[in-house]
Amino acid sequence: MAGILFRRATRADVPAIVRLLAEDDLGSQRERFADPLTESYFLAFEQIDRDANHELIVAEQNGDVIGTLHLIFLPSLSYQGGTRAQVESVRVDQRLRNQGIGRGMMLWAIERVRQRGCPLLQLTSNKSRADAHGFYISLGFTNSHTGMKLNLK
Amino acid sequence: MAGILFRRATRADVPAIVRLLAEDDLGSQRERFADPLTESYFLAFEQIDRDANHELIVAEQNGDVIGTLHLIFLPSLSYQGGTRAQVESVRVDQRLRNQGIGRGMMLWAIERVRQRGCPLLQLTSNKSRADAHGFYISLGFTNSHTGMKLNLK
Repeated sequence: MAGILFRRATRADVPAIVRLLAEDDLGSQRERFADPLTESYFLAFEQIDRDANHELIVAEQNGDVIGTLHLIFLPSLSYQGGTRAQVESVRVDQRLRNQGIGRGMMLWAIERVRQRGCPLLQLTSNKSRADAHGFYISLGFTNSHTGMKLNLK
Repeated sequence: MAGILFRRATRADVPAIVRLLAEDDLGSQRERFADPLTESYFLAFEQIDRDANHELIVAEQNGDVIGTLHLIFLPSLSYQGGTRAQVESVRVDQRLRNQGIGRGMMLWAIERVRQRGCPLLQLTSNKSRADAHGFYISLGFTNSHTGMKLNLK
């Protein structure tokens, strides 16, 4: 997309990513966006950053982080020992919705996953995000599974 | 459960695990259970085995592998930098269904995930597995998400 750069996140991006996670309706219930940011976010970033099976991505425009997604590569015995890919925490700045930024990010992610030879890209989306489901289907995803969560807190 | 041992899988368990994956209706379309087994299964096992964020588990009874599941620990920025847990490829030997083995395995997995301090355990289940959904709900899971897959083959 013109003027938008997709790149690996650095430690300096963590506050901007957490802001995107926290501004969301669901995220606002579970995140804590403060200055300075809770250390647990940076500790998680370090684990993600040093793991070659994780790629935390930001979309940058004019020096600002305007979107994020987290790609995870999961070696598995299923699919004849294929590495499945998963995407989590897809967010676009709420002020910049409906401009195709999310689509550009996801198309970039799909290409990245193809490069790594994955047979499958999977994600789950909260049923309350009705718009998101049509969006993913328009990208070729099939709505074949039920996603279940067990809260352990 | 009496007489059933839950333990980390070893390389020697790989054929028995693949048999469980392949005997399933959906799995039979994507796995290749042969003797000798395709090398890709062993290569995937090696990746899983050396990654501290993966625990491939078998249920053993009288020396036989009768069930399997794959626990994955996913560091993430969301949930205030919490490590979410995911379970994939839950299977019980079809000849031993409805004896509570799956329940025993999942209760073991939930306890394991609690030990590692995860805020959440997540999974997806194909919508065609109607029985499985009730089973997971009976364990406390909520059916809150849509699970989407993009086939890249």
